Amino acid sequence: MHKLTFSLFMLCCIATANAQKIQSPDKSFDLDFSLQSGGVPTYSLEYKGQAVIKPSHLGLQLVNDTDLNKDFTIEKIDTSSFDETWKPVWGEVSQIRNHYKEMAVTLLQNSTKHEMVIRFRLFNDGLGFRYEFPFTKKDFIYFTIKEENTQFAMAGDHKAFWLPGDFDTEEYSTVTSKLSEIRGKMKDAVTPNASQTTFSPTGVQTPLMMKSDKGLYINIHEAALIDYAAMNLNLDDQNMTFTTFLTPDAQGNKGHLQTPTQTPWRTVIVSDKAADILTSKLIYNLNEPTKYEDVSWIKPMKYVGVWWEMITGKSTWAYADTDNIHLGITDYSKLKPNGKHGATTTNVKKYIDFAAANGFDAVLVEGWNVGWEDWFGHEKDYVFDFITPYPDFDVKELHRYAASKGIKIIMHHETSGSVRNYERFMDTAYRFMVDNGYNAVKSGYVGNILPRGEHHYGQWIDNHYLHAVKKASEYKIMVDAHESVHMTGLSRTYPNLLAEEAARGTEYESFGGNNADHTTILPFTRLMGGPMDYTPGIFETRIEKINPENHSFVHTTLARQLALYVTMYSPFQMAADLPENYMRFPDAFQFIKDVAVDWDDTKVLEAEPGDYITYARKAKGTNNWFVGRTNDEISRVSDISLDFLDKGKKYIATIYQDGKDADYEKNPQSYTIKKMNVTDKTKLKIICARGGGYAISIIAQ
Amino acid sequence: MHKLTFSLFMLCCIATANAQKIQSPDKSFDLDFSLQSGGVPTYSLEYKGQAVIKPSHLGLQLVNDTDLNKDFTIEKIDTSSFDETWKPVWGEVSQIRNHYKEMAVTLLQNSTKHEMVIRFRLFNDGLGFRYEFPFTKKDFIYFTIKEENTQFAMAGDHKAFWLPGDFDTEEYSTVTSKLSEIRGKMKDAVTPNASQTTFSPTGVQTPLMMKSDKGLYINIHEAALIDYAAMNLNLDDQNMTFTTFLTPDAQGNKGHLQTPTQTPWRTVIVSDKAADILTSKLIYNLNEPTKYEDVSWIKPMKYVGVWWEMITGKSTWAYADTDNIHLGITDYSKLKPNGKHGATTTNVKKYIDFAAANGFDAVLVEGWNVGWEDWFGHEKDYVFDFITPYPDFDVKELHRYAASKGIKIIMHHETSGSVRNYERFMDTAYRFMVDNGYNAVKSGYVGNILPRGEHHYGQWIDNHYLHAVKKASEYKIMVDAHESVHMTGLSRTYPNLLAEEAARGTEYESFGGNNADHTTILPFTRLMGGPMDYTPGIFETRIEKINPENHSFVHTTLARQLALYVTMYSPFQMAADLPENYMRFPDAFQFIKDVAVDWDDTKVLEAEPGDYITYARKAKGTNNWFVGRTNDEISRVSDISLDFLDKGKKYIATIYQDGKDADYEKNPQSYTIKKMNVTDKTKLKIICARGGGYAISIIAQ
Repeated sequence: MHKLTFSLFMLCCIATANAQKIQSPDKSFDLDFSLQSGGVPTYSLEYKGQAVIKPSHLGLQLVNDTDLNKDFTIEKIDTSSFDETWKPVWGEVSQIRNHYKEMAVTLLQNSTKHEMVIRFRLFNDGLGFRYEFPFTKKDFIYFTIKEENTQFAMAGDHKAFWLPGDFDTEEYSTVTSKLSEIRGKMKDAVTPNASQTTFSPTGVQTPLMMKSDKGLYINIHEAALIDYAAMNLNLDDQNMTFTTFLTPDAQGNKGHLQTPTQTPWRTVIVSDKAADILTSKLIYNLNEPTKYEDVSWIKPMKYVGVWWEMITGKSTWAYADTDNIHLGITDYSKLKPNGKHGATTTNVKKYIDFAAANGFDAVLVEGWNVGWEDWFGHEKDYVFDFITPYPDFDVKELHRYAASKGIKIIMHHETSGSVRNYERFMDTAYRFMVDNGYNAVKSGYVGNILPRGEHHYGQWIDNHYLHAVKKASEYKIMVDAHESVHMTGLSRTYPNLLAEEAARGTEYESFGGNNADHTTILPFTRLMGGPMDYTPGIFETRIEKINPENHSFVHTTLARQLALYVTMYSPFQMAADLPENYMRFPDAFQFIKDVAVDWDDTKVLEAEPGDYITYARKAKGTNNWFVGRTNDEISRVSDISLDFLDKGKKYIATIYQDGKDADYEKNPQSYTIKKMNVTDKTKLKIICARGGGYAISIIAQ
Repeated sequence: MHKLTFSLFMLCCIATANAQKIQSPDKSFDLDFSLQSGGVPTYSLEYKGQAVIKPSHLGLQLVNDTDLNKDFTIEKIDTSSFDETWKPVWGEVSQIRNHYKEMAVTLLQNSTKHEMVIRFRLFNDGLGFRYEFPFTKKDFIYFTIKEENTQFAMAGDHKAFWLPGDFDTEEYSTVTSKLSEIRGKMKDAVTPNASQTTFSPTGVQTPLMMKSDKGLYINIHEAALIDYAAMNLNLDDQNMTFTTFLTPDAQGNKGHLQTPTQTPWRTVIVSDKAADILTSKLIYNLNEPTKYEDVSWIKPMKYVGVWWEMITGKSTWAYADTDNIHLGITDYSKLKPNGKHGATTTNVKKYIDFAAANGFDAVLVEGWNVGWEDWFGHEKDYVFDFITPYPDFDVKELHRYAASKGIKIIMHHETSGSVRNYERFMDTAYRFMVDNGYNAVKSGYVGNILPRGEHHYGQWIDNHYLHAVKKASEYKIMVDAHESVHMTGLSRTYPNLLAEEAARGTEYESFGGNNADHTTILPFTRLMGGPMDYTPGIFETRIEKINPENHSFVHTTLARQLALYVTMYSPFQMAADLPENYMRFPDAFQFIKDVAVDWDDTKVLEAEPGDYITYARKAKGTNNWFVGRTNDEISRVSDISLDFLDKGKKYIATIYQDGKDADYEKNPQSYTIKKMNVTDKTKLKIICARGGGYAISIIAQ
């Protein structure tokens, strides 16, 4: 990442006072910090004169040490200003401005003489702050967090887009309700998952998106989650005040820290325009620049894969039908193949041919390695070895064949939550990838974490996810992690972390379905922290056409599936449907073939969480634009201007839109495609069906 | 290991009855098995007509499943006989006879139709039995153990040599008391340790040595501890009945099993002669033969090391004096050396010179790698990386220098209990060893196990210790593990596991001292499972001569330190004192130079646990013998015959014995050395001082 511009002003070291204010560079935000009675750190935030965060307490409770939430005096306050523009390795835009006012409040606890710094950074799009614990004395090097007590006191009973708070899964449907309604809706919101641990009837996850009655959009999340437990929020629904609730370890503690250290940043992104939430780069800006010296090997990818056929139940990850596998002991040559195994050499070659014929970069193959017959639900320790293929999967031949067609194969490492086992094999597994031409891995953490008692989002396991990414970088391997902790902008620092799942993806369309408004919310929630491997592109929305026993259906129109390539940003983007389904709709498939996966610029043309989002993105290194619109369960008219195009320049637009009779439930495959000449003066009104949307490619002439 | 002789007789499949007996091959043991009222599996054991184990229940309690301890009927009973002689890769003898009667009782639980086999093997030196869980049906593949309920009902209030039962340490002093006195003595027995978790006022560890009023010696332990929690015993001191008490995981469960599987063997070794306990190979015989095809790289070693100088406080593992190290961030080039660092290139070269001049194989170096300033007591995750040397330790130069003198350097991997961190680096660390000429590693697990809640002896961590050994074998590396789980004969299967600590070693002589009778007990307890890296050979028994601030002293005479090379069997044997101390006593040091570390034969000439042990061992591939006698805190006369020597052959014996005024407290360095001609007719009476002993080399002419 290049640093384009940079300025830093140390304003001054302010004399200690019990209250202090700063303003954002554009003066739209006001942050107040004060010590309340008893030396309790307290902050509040206003946006254009409206309260966003009412006075809220700050601090932490410790185990076997004095809590760091009261009895403080202000030792000093340092303020400064920062303005830098940097270039991401990949992204929605080619450069990002990091511009903020900073206030670092150094607090001294009277009884213990422990020092704690609260560092606030106030941007034009919101606030980030964190706790820092300098190393000042020998009796405060190591400490254990009982709970972090950061409050976010809301100014009203906002509309919220929330998931049940959980230590093990983010794969819930988003519930849209008033804050005061969370308690009543919690029970239904907690749907079954392979691993789940809720903690409170008013506990919710972040990124949490809200909208006030006065039309203020507010997003709360965290940035730079490193060596710390992931944050949930627990709501006091009398006072509409959230308090942080961290993921515990097996003993119930929330974190083990060593000075000098700091927490992740707590972020509050605010605007009176929903679009500004989507374009905010505040979370990336609060992460560190990458330390990788060479990033030339990190490349966005568009891929197909041996995956949807297993998700729908047409084929299996497993090679045989048996319930009892002892890895390394079970002799696969003696097992009878079940005849439904997806990852066979022959089948993978079909996908390679399809990928090569249609301009994809790679083919994902799941179910290639031994163990899948008996991998799940038993908290098994030695479940996979990540290097032993099934008898019908020829690693060397497929490497040769794929390479001959210019296609990469994407590795799959399902861990089944057995994290130690994965780390045991990690070096060997990554080297196996290098030796066989793989440069990207999709990893998975389905089921309870081992050792028992640990959770998916605790400090110890968060360290694992990052370890896997850093270790992968040593082998020039890109990572797409599933069932891992929510993203917090770490891809800025570790850009080989291309994407994660960490939410309810397309797979749930085959497990009962996603809400029709699901993709109008995810960019405001899950995607705030980084790209999601949502795996769009399902053309055959009736799953029973693939597997007659599966009566789920995809809750979108075909046209909206195209739109998702633009609206669900990811540098690791799948065309998830079966090749034969794409071949049935070659005109619509053309958009997937054309669409970019890396961008120089991004505009949000329309946005309202839960209702619709329309993005326009400029493909990297070109003058071509791609537009995508995702629409909720109500038919709506999209009204956009193409004024983002170069003035006076001519373009040809191809519009892939819902047919007149399209409807995600009744007629999802109705679409029309039209070509037209457009310029920056062009305005378009496009009708979006229920659960519909559209996609447009705009090619410069 | 070569199989020398082999015979197997399937006696028959006995018709199901509710009671069954077998006898040991020599008929000294009688084993009874029966189902008691309610279908409760029950066994009892007699030796020469005396009750050893009174009727005792067998079975396990399960989590969320029907307990496997009652409601059984006998499905079938298979009996057989086995007789084989095999050769260990290294050992106290060149060949071992594995001769037993076997009875496998297949039980069917009426309510669940679960099948469980109890397999008994009755040897001429005692009993082994285990539970087996065949895979018979889909509803009983995975199960979780709440507790194993194996009883050992003693026939009297025996004298016992016991340690407090604990999930995290075996480094207690042995207490000698009646079983009925355990409760009263427990509080004083639980001395502080870096990690410890006791569980009961009558809980004790195994190997547990006992002696009945009638002079029967009884030893209880386990064999082949694989994928299972280590066993402690909990005493019902009204009935003198022990019940197994397994080490729990972080959630309090005791084991997670997948059929087909089995528990470790439970062992009861019995004789009316104490010497027979010491020569028993029952525990090895219950382990599987090695699966390693090539064992040529596994070699016993005699070594010196940069170790005692740190243990005594003369020098330090750490390079600098600081309390706060962040590995990979802390810049060691900016730290001020403390001037006391032991593992400097210069100092290690001194040890290499000393090793080469005196016929040692290797030099152990601890404290060579960064992190020691801040490694302990904080349950730190990233504490060592196992590959980064201190600035004053030149790996390449030391490799070159050592190799030029024919000396190996022994690697040291302290994990500080951070097991995942060790596994992360394991491949890299072992490869680093290979690249730099190391072929043996001393590993350590000081402090609480990470992740928090796991214990040193739980199933999950037991799996780690074995993983480390198996992985080491891929790199042809030998392992000496400290603070790991007790040995259970696994060195038969994995002979690169040369030794372990797993008890209170010589280091405690510098931490307050070991009891004077300590080494008269260890061969009856700790060493039953395999070799101990006891690190004998301390000539300067007053620690304050090395470090004026350390007032501990070694609780033996100098002569007994020589004896330990014979009495504390290990193929990985250290001369632990500082070179300069050996140089002060070159005549005594000659014994350490001469003594072997691998043997063709072993005789126990005298033995009484807690009082004395006298061994004679024949050095591998020679006609030379070495005799060692360890004596407790009472001065005694040892009365031995050399009738084990070849008849008529002439030998020269060199006797290193306590001086007339020797006393471990008052005059430990008083010794005399005399040479004499001896034959198989020679008888010797040698006075052993308080805490004394002697060593004899007998060289064939």
